[in-house]
Amino acid sequence: MKTNKIITISREFGTGGRTIGKLLAEKLGIPFYDKSIIDKAAEASGLSADFIAQAEQKLTSSMLFNFVTFGYQHPDYKPLSDQVYIAEYKVIKEIAAQGPCVIVGRCADSILREKHDLINIFIYADMAHKIERCVTHYNISLKDAEKEIKDREKQRSRHYQYYSEQVWGNKSNYDLCVNAGALGIEGSVELLNSFVELLDK
Amino acid sequence: MKTNKIITISREFGTGGRTIGKLLAEKLGIPFYDKSIIDKAAEASGLSADFIAQAEQKLTSSMLFNFVTFGYQHPDYKPLSDQVYIAEYKVIKEIAAQGPCVIVGRCADSILREKHDLINIFIYADMAHKIERCVTHYNISLKDAEKEIKDREKQRSRHYQYYSEQVWGNKSNYDLCVNAGALGIEGSVELLNSFVELLDK
Repeated sequence: MKTNKIITISREFGTGGRTIGKLLAEKLGIPFYDKSIIDKAAEASGLSADFIAQAEQKLTSSMLFNFVTFGYQHPDYKPLSDQVYIAEYKVIKEIAAQGPCVIVGRCADSILREKHDLINIFIYADMAHKIERCVTHYNISLKDAEKEIKDREKQRSRHYQYYSEQVWGNKSNYDLCVNAGALGIEGSVELLNSFVELLDK
Repeated sequence: MKTNKIITISREFGTGGRTIGKLLAEKLGIPFYDKSIIDKAAEASGLSADFIAQAEQKLTSSMLFNFVTFGYQHPDYKPLSDQVYIAEYKVIKEIAAQGPCVIVGRCADSILREKHDLINIFIYADMAHKIERCVTHYNISLKDAEKEIKDREKQRSRHYQYYSEQVWGNKSNYDLCVNAGALGIEGSVELLNSFVELLDK
């Protein structure tokens, strides 16, 4: 039976959450979306892919400036990256309207919160597990891995908090939180597949 | 195949986590332990069941006194309830040494942390879901339910933090965190059964 669910996957850096999402989508026979959303957003809004990538990278520093100078959520302050977020927001809404899929990252869990048949998953792991994966799969040196993980997670956390006004990784925002270190990539995909099957029952 | 795992279940109040643990133990054909640990602890240590029950209830207020007067973890301060914790600690260690089982609450995840073949599960749910269960299953009035849930969770949180020196409900302490509102009791049991099967593969 093909699922009718829209599945969002949020994940700590170095957990293999993106790969888990991709394999889950394959197993369920439904579309998978991640960075490709950027390109779709660019096409839809007329923004260039380069501009979007730059704005995303700048978000952390402009937000810090925002926090320090104006305090959180000052109504008069609109960072440049808002244009990108709005474009991505529209694309995610359009994707979800087309039917079942897996979407990784991009605050999709928050953007689609009110949607029926939504499943929100969070993938996490111990630091040791994430460091090992960064070294073996992401070509990051053992020396740099922990700092890289912390920096990337700080970036994701700030981006999520800024746009969703929720705390990133807070389990109450998710239907299931999976420690990828317990089952590994394949096992986590199997577990999520069982989860979707049980929900579809 | 009978599992070789020792499974601890921690849970928010009103999620049905205890029932989930009991049904999971039945499904796996392994022993289940919860409040009965108190009685075993009492027998083993010579403390009376009444004394243990009273000390548990007093823990919150004596800990508050401890926090306010001496600051957290003052080395010279030993609340009376430490005697109970030490008795329970020993019992949990003995139970786990006997083989596979499900243990609900009692800081078992923290007490057994170093043990091989340990699975730590956390069960949570939305406040609305917990209120509904308190009203329909625990004979608590709709008016009192939210306060009762928050009080009981504060108690669990303080007890856990005091003895384990960890934050209660922090997902990094668990292998899987299940929102019981997503699948309900039976579905959550099925999911946990699949999780154990995948770990045993």
